[in-house]
Amino acid sequence: MGIKVTDKIKLAVKGSSDSGQIIKVGNTTIGGSQLLIIAGPCSVESREQLVNTAVAVKKAGANALRGGAFKPRTLPYSFQGLGEEGLKILAEARELTGLPVITEVMSPQDVELVEGYADVLQIGARNMQNYPLLKRVGRADKPILLKRGMSATIEEWLGSAEYIMLEGNNEIILCERGLRSFDPVTRNLLDVTAVPIIKQVSSLPVVIDPSHGTGVKSLVAPMSNAGVAAGADGILVEVHTNPELALSDGAQSLDPDEFSSLIEGLKPIAEAVGKYV
Amino acid sequence: MGIKVTDKIKLAVKGSSDSGQIIKVGNTTIGGSQLLIIAGPCSVESREQLVNTAVAVKKAGANALRGGAFKPRTLPYSFQGLGEEGLKILAEARELTGLPVITEVMSPQDVELVEGYADVLQIGARNMQNYPLLKRVGRADKPILLKRGMSATIEEWLGSAEYIMLEGNNEIILCERGLRSFDPVTRNLLDVTAVPIIKQVSSLPVVIDPSHGTGVKSLVAPMSNAGVAAGADGILVEVHTNPELALSDGAQSLDPDEFSSLIEGLKPIAEAVGKYV
Amino acid sequence: MGIKVTDKIKLAVKGSSDSGQIIKVGNTTIGGSQLLIIAGPCSVESREQLVNTAVAVKKAGANALRGGAFKPRTLPYSFQGLGEEGLKILAEARELTGLPVITEVMSPQDVELVEGYADVLQIGARNMQNYPLLKRVGRADKPILLKRGMSATIEEWLGSAEYIMLEGNNEIILCERGLRSFDPVTRNLLDVTAVPIIKQVSSLPVVIDPSHGTGVKSLVAPMSNAGVAAGADGILVEVHTNPELALSDGAQSLDPDEFSSLIEGLKPIAEAVGKYV
Amino acid sequence: MGIKVTDKIKLAVKGSSDSGQIIKVGNTTIGGSQLLIIAGPCSVESREQLVNTAVAVKKAGANALRGGAFKPRTLPYSFQGLGEEGLKILAEARELTGLPVITEVMSPQDVELVEGYADVLQIGARNMQNYPLLKRVGRADKPILLKRGMSATIEEWLGSAEYIMLEGNNEIILCERGLRSFDPVTRNLLDVTAVPIIKQVSSLPVVIDPSHGTGVKSLVAPMSNAGVAAGADGILVEVHTNPELALSDGAQSLDPDEFSSLIEGLKPIAEAVGKYV
Repeated sequence: MGIKVTDKIKLAVKGSSDSGQIIKVGNTTIGGSQLLIIAGPCSVESREQLVNTAVAVKKAGANALRGGAFKPRTLPYSFQGLGEEGLKILAEARELTGLPVITEVMSPQDVELVEGYADVLQIGARNMQNYPLLKRVGRADKPILLKRGMSATIEEWLGSAEYIMLEGNNEIILCERGLRSFDPVTRNLLDVTAVPIIKQVSSLPVVIDPSHGTGVKSLVAPMSNAGVAAGADGILVEVHTNPELALSDGAQSLDPDEFSSLIEGLKPIAEAVGKYV
Repeated sequence: MGIKVTDKIKLAVKGSSDSGQIIKVGNTTIGGSQLLIIAGPCSVESREQLVNTAVAVKKAGANALRGGAFKPRTLPYSFQGLGEEGLKILAEARELTGLPVITEVMSPQDVELVEGYADVLQIGARNMQNYPLLKRVGRADKPILLKRGMSATIEEWLGSAEYIMLEGNNEIILCERGLRSFDPVTRNLLDVTAVPIIKQVSSLPVVIDPSHGTGVKSLVAPMSNAGVAAGADGILVEVHTNPELALSDGAQSLDPDEFSSLIEGLKPIAEAVGKYV
Repeated sequence: MGIKVTDKIKLAVKGSSDSGQIIKVGNTTIGGSQLLIIAGPCSVESREQLVNTAVAVKKAGANALRGGAFKPRTLPYSFQGLGEEGLKILAEARELTGLPVITEVMSPQDVELVEGYADVLQIGARNMQNYPLLKRVGRADKPILLKRGMSATIEEWLGSAEYIMLEGNNEIILCERGLRSFDPVTRNLLDVTAVPIIKQVSSLPVVIDPSHGTGVKSLVAPMSNAGVAAGADGILVEVHTNPELALSDGAQSLDPDEFSSLIEGLKPIAEAVGKYV
Repeated sequence: MGIKVTDKIKLAVKGSSDSGQIIKVGNTTIGGSQLLIIAGPCSVESREQLVNTAVAVKKAGANALRGGAFKPRTLPYSFQGLGEEGLKILAEARELTGLPVITEVMSPQDVELVEGYADVLQIGARNMQNYPLLKRVGRADKPILLKRGMSATIEEWLGSAEYIMLEGNNEIILCERGLRSFDPVTRNLLDVTAVPIIKQVSSLPVVIDPSHGTGVKSLVAPMSNAGVAAGADGILVEVHTNPELALSDGAQSLDPDEFSSLIEGLKPIAEAVGKYV
């Protein structure tokens, strides 16, 4: 009647008396009553773009900043991110706004570098089963945001968390970002059900990413609502000061006003499930 | 930035000035502020089972009764439903409780019979592209609950609604019931995103079925919350007075107490999006 | 190590001593050493189109003729087939060429009509779980070509065959026609592995449909080869005298010359697995 | 009517005058008339196991040896491979048999090590979009066997090849190994159609892996036939001297006698398409 996962997963699965784990994210936390609202552009494109966005999302209610400096792109000719320069811009935005920074790391060799700037290290969907990378971030001092692979089962996802935890890092935030599916009307198929499944089998906090999860601007707010109503501990939303000019993912990025509306709509939902923004 | 569907679909897609359509369901409605809460067993098994369930779900807050008299089962050896006897029991339960009755019809020849007893005719997922059946119910006098096929695109689903509407029946309630997917942890993958997509492209009301959509009892309440938070006009939930003894779908059926808790949890979510139970 | 299907399926699954079943199809057979090469247009569009195609495919090596008179189309505005007029044209083509005729039936009410003209009744993918239709063709006097649903498991497909067999009709030809999948490069994902699975668990003959299975003309010949190499008892190929003018499925239809080349390429493959065209 | 891929892919897509590329693999080649038959255990478990298997598969007709020394496993508690010790055993087996060695590399840091022992570097399905790894093997001196990700589109797969080629390594063997799908009857869904698609859009050779692609021993031979009939340049088959005792993938491994039968059955198919074993 309940959810069953293999008993070979030991660390990422909760015991009968475990409650939800609270993880420190810079000057805030995830896993308690306050939602973690992570917002920012897909890619860090310039100092001005990022700082303006950071200020705007903070004002609208975000309590964490996202932005990619190392970008996994399907083709080598697409914008690959600013690298360390992007990390420096992220750190500067943190200084200005106080928002903790979440950014992706793609290679074991880069973990030390990224750790020097970020508050949370993101493992992207394409690297969910990159085991050398998982082992390396398992020895990092920062929490990990572990995105679900685009066709990973819940067990495989928890198996990847297990790799990180076995190396000693228990601070993992799981992120559902949409599954590969057949209907071209959306970019991915957001598996909202993953949220209550994770809450029932694991103590780890879980967030949803309705931006990648749908790929469609007009669906980001309703799916944020759905995720929080289902029990998510936070959301990860792409916001760009000028979505039409974004170097990546413009079609799914909100502008700051749209993001602000999303937050207003989310507040009563959060309250309805005993949480707050 | 928004959802695009082919402009060949004319009736099932809303015009720029259309608002949501309100459909009469027995003595209640769907599509306005009040949610349609449809509850009942997967199959009508006996007079006692159905009447007891009907009384219990009404008390807990349901305003419509579901129950299958004609059952599409994967194997011919499985319980195939009570047929007309089941329809009579459903009608009797309506007399007793006032709840309008929703039940499946599987064949054009049976439409007249089922119409004589039911308030809403359900087209099941397996018959979403059974075009002779769609055309026949398009000439029925009752609203149609049209379930999405287990791997149907949004366009195909609306195309099926178009078949019904072209015959003259505009009263269609769309029902998302989960897609076929790869993770055995759930029976189907509930596509909650279908809800805001439908609301954005169509005037038709839409409900979700978290029971078939997950196949797991403990996920029914959180996914009901998610569906309503995303904008659904109602939910379709399997409730059985004794799930362990159910002739079909026991693992996903709630008992009346669990259903009552679901409703209590759903109320604040409904309120948060301007609706009520 | 081998394939397992539920032991609830009794008729459609072979016993340990069963060999492949041979089914009479008009003046030819399927299930023995000779492949059944079924060719013809997606839809019967006119007497001229069908007769010309029938003559051409026979010359190229086909031993059965396909053509739809009742067409299941996603939208009600698409060409729905010529109905009984199409059936008459098919019968006339049979008179002229001797090729047995395979055509789809979509409704229990039409079975008697279609049976009067066709040599094999086709159940389309969208109707694989239309149980009243399956029961009705189970009482027909003609063999059934049962297409696999677009996201049906092997067990569900055999379950549908079981419905037909339980009514007394044991002459079922299974047809794999491609599954719904995520890559837009093809229309469907042809599951060639279904062929050896069926041969290992069932006595029923199985054919593949590389036209619907790929939706791409240039893939039809190599996938015919693949299917036969994997053990298929035949192929179902769309051929049109003028694919650019086809009322349906032009992009995947071969012209008679291309079909003739396909047959030439298929012959040595057939021989390699102990069969012949 | 033909296959279309984005024109942003430049190196991995063939020009109108390009023919198939022939790649040297140790003392043999792939891409010409001779099939590359790669056989061996999933994991290198011991010197004895590997050497015995190598001798047996060579005798049966293999012309390349596979075996994993670094194993990507879903859980950290599963056998992770012998590492460098495994590489040494592979090299020793090559000395004894002359068979070139294909083995997986999972991390940029390990490329130099693995390159010292292997003739072909394998990128596994889970790492198909591990771009730092792709870039690193793009600077290696050995050919790359690039497995398709378990839900990668053809374009994404070619995009990954593009990353490798852009770094200067043009010697890429593509390997279709099965897609994630919904039917538990097989482990994956082998996409045989990927073979003719690749042959039509790219000059790169392509092989299929019917062992991972089905996960079922009895399906390995028929699906090898299907792949070669569809135009594959080779196969990758798991063979173990004692499948029941295998530390990984026993259910899909052939023993040497079964592999020998597979090769005998494959020979006439190869001949039918103008190739040989």
